[in-house]
Amino acid sequence: MNRGMLIIVSGPSGVGKGTVCNALFAQDAKLTFSVSATTRAPRPGEKEGVSYFFISDAEFQRMVEQDAFLEYACNFNTSSYGTPKAYVEKMRDAGKDVVLDIDVKGAANVKKVCPDAITIFIAPPSMDALESRLRGRATENEEALQKRLREAVIEMDRIDEYEYLVVNDVLQTAVGDMHSIINAERLRTFRNVSLFNQLRGGR
Amino acid sequence: MNRGMLIIVSGPSGVGKGTVCNALFAQDAKLTFSVSATTRAPRPGEKEGVSYFFISDAEFQRMVEQDAFLEYACNFNTSSYGTPKAYVEKMRDAGKDVVLDIDVKGAANVKKVCPDAITIFIAPPSMDALESRLRGRATENEEALQKRLREAVIEMDRIDEYEYLVVNDVLQTAVGDMHSIINAERLRTFRNVSLFNQLRGGR
Repeated sequence: MNRGMLIIVSGPSGVGKGTVCNALFAQDAKLTFSVSATTRAPRPGEKEGVSYFFISDAEFQRMVEQDAFLEYACNFNTSSYGTPKAYVEKMRDAGKDVVLDIDVKGAANVKKVCPDAITIFIAPPSMDALESRLRGRATENEEALQKRLREAVIEMDRIDEYEYLVVNDVLQTAVGDMHSIINAERLRTFRNVSLFNQLRGGR
Repeated sequence: MNRGMLIIVSGPSGVGKGTVCNALFAQDAKLTFSVSATTRAPRPGEKEGVSYFFISDAEFQRMVEQDAFLEYACNFNTSSYGTPKAYVEKMRDAGKDVVLDIDVKGAANVKKVCPDAITIFIAPPSMDALESRLRGRATENEEALQKRLREAVIEMDRIDEYEYLVVNDVLQTAVGDMHSIINAERLRTFRNVSLFNQLRGGR
């Protein structure tokens, strides 16, 4: 069995990353989301080890010191989040392709530690379309929305750090594009050394 | 419009490259085969500029001297074949993704001149399966068949020079894999610089 891949997915808030990934996961049993560790309290319905690993500030701090995160964002006023290395490794060793939904800064950090990670940026068809989608959610005041749009511009400026660019205009196209990328990466020769030895069948 | 890609497809004789590529081309209007130049005479039904560019030995020699081939194989006893640079460039400039069906040596030469070429090796599910397929054709004597099998082993030894490995066991899977690779390569960020400038919409 081949070791699983690490797939980083980034994109601005409102682009529909969750929707694209959920549709993709429904078609592909080899994919799994990474489970993050967080210091915030569980919300109703959230399950330990499925939604998150819920840990204390002290535990989080200890994991940072032990270099046990692939990437993390500390915010001791509200809550901290991190991607535990051990969990990701366990999944990859089991042949699962692990998807990390993280921001541009986190992605850059993971790519340093895991140069073989595949990086995909999901972009809206335009900034105007993104603004419409954020307004359509209608869960935020104008100030929060403007902040998200400014952050989106900053993230979009770093698209060139990603290997692949998927535009989420029509959902099914975006899902198909994600599927193509993941399937193509699975077909990379360097990931299939045992296969091509086997293909020759000892001749 | 993005400049078209150059896609090198290799694989041993009998693996079904032609069948895979024809099925793929039927689904994808952006793909086009490269047209080779040859010094042999046209066979019935072959058309100038479609099947081949039919040229004289002297013309072939002149093109070699002018470095006008991406790759070529000279065989003045029988016939020579070459891939004309100008034709490939014209197609790529028109936004077409050009597929070259060439052997391992030719592929290595093209990759030197065009480092951005995408390289795909199509392998049989096993050497035994390849032998069965070649025998199934029943167009050759035992000696010719054994020669093809020896050549196949030599080609298979160089799979690691290719970026992607597609196994042609079930035709539809192989065609889907080729489609994934080509679609994924089209989504590479470096091929879509104008797109991501446009996505930001001047913000």
